[in-house]
Amino acid sequence: MTYCLAASLRAGLVFAADTRTNAGLDHVNSFRKMHSFVWEGDRVMVLLSAGNLATTQAVVTHLQREAEEGGPLREVAHLSDAAEHVGQVSLQVQQRYHSADSANPVSLEATFILGGQVGDEAPSAFLIYPQGNFITCSEEQPFLQIGETKYGKPILDRIIEPGLSLEDAARCALVSIDSTMRSNLSVGPPVDLAIYRAGTLEAPRTLRYKHNSPYFASVRKHWSEGLRRLFDDLPRFDWES
Amino acid sequence: MTYCLAASLRAGLVFAADTRTNAGLDHVNSFRKMHSFVWEGDRVMVLLSAGNLATTQAVVTHLQREAEEGGPLREVAHLSDAAEHVGQVSLQVQQRYHSADSANPVSLEATFILGGQVGDEAPSAFLIYPQGNFITCSEEQPFLQIGETKYGKPILDRIIEPGLSLEDAARCALVSIDSTMRSNLSVGPPVDLAIYRAGTLEAPRTLRYKHNSPYFASVRKHWSEGLRRLFDDLPRFDWES
Repeated sequence: MTYCLAASLRAGLVFAADTRTNAGLDHVNSFRKMHSFVWEGDRVMVLLSAGNLATTQAVVTHLQREAEEGGPLREVAHLSDAAEHVGQVSLQVQQRYHSADSANPVSLEATFILGGQVGDEAPSAFLIYPQGNFITCSEEQPFLQIGETKYGKPILDRIIEPGLSLEDAARCALVSIDSTMRSNLSVGPPVDLAIYRAGTLEAPRTLRYKHNSPYFASVRKHWSEGLRRLFDDLPRFDWES
Repeated sequence: MTYCLAASLRAGLVFAADTRTNAGLDHVNSFRKMHSFVWEGDRVMVLLSAGNLATTQAVVTHLQREAEEGGPLREVAHLSDAAEHVGQVSLQVQQRYHSADSANPVSLEATFILGGQVGDEAPSAFLIYPQGNFITCSEEQPFLQIGETKYGKPILDRIIEPGLSLEDAARCALVSIDSTMRSNLSVGPPVDLAIYRAGTLEAPRTLRYKHNSPYFASVRKHWSEGLRRLFDDLPRFDWES
């Protein structure tokens, strides 16, 4: 599995992704699930991927080769057109391969988040389904998640709102991914983080945290110890002295 | 959906369940998912249920009618034998009804947690699968969950351990259910809580909390405000002031 998320704020965009992949329990590996497409001064896009690893790698490779020669991501007038293109490439890759064993079908499905900014448009983010269609964020739902999304959703529901600073959103993303990694073995470090400041049209600030990277370890320790103190301070039942 | 959990501690057992049920979006209702079977001085059992509402209600009704006349729950020498019986009743109910529309099958599956104490045996708890088989807790995994389990698992992973007091485990269960209700509309109040003290062989202390019940509201407020403060106090990235 995988866990990726993007937050769409007035200040810009924050992206986070784990890097663990597994094809059965024997093939546990670490792959980058976050890829950037940057034409400085013109457009910036960040792609997050979850699902069948062969499909996501084929889609990313296809998009990267296209991008070297121009291609749709370089040319589209709107980020939503880029989302449409990613969805179409994903569908074509899925349709190219078929499961030989119909009694034991392998899911070739993949899900993506594409976020960024094209020219003067406001930054935005899209969640692209395996069927190629997509949804975007809203003021009420300023974040998108793909993969193993449930463990880390409560903290996002509590904290992420459109007026949040990029740094606060990035910290919240780290906490959300940490909670997921603690509860689910299929999500694991290193963690990739990208922070894009609205209007800059420059490459996002990217960070990669291993389990013991000082800042990530410090956030995890503060959070873990703070939760314990907070729990210990909860009001008592009326029959407790 | 549903969210139920049981914690098995050296001090006894804690059970918690929400009460929301839905059959499609039009039939959202509130039903008790926690049922007790108590023969004071001899045995105490608490049953939590998730899954198809017709199946779970049929199983509970069957067990309650049996219990009025003695029956397996009253007679078994071990709690695991009671879990085996619940699994068999569940299987029989599922097999009695079939989906008429094979193109649009309805899942009749149900999952249960059965916990309690039989005579001199140590208290224990079992998670009973739709197939009728079951697993129990361990020192390393002192809690069981059924239904919409993922949102509320991180806090259990952090807090629940076998030496915890019954009251702390009950508070942790309330926090876990609150987090789930915030992130998932299919889990909702009132919340049922049952606390069984090991060795008493008496009916567990039961509590029911509505959304605005003073104690539950107080725990939720403390937790929510405390999390926000904890988040605001997290260490800053090195480029922040």
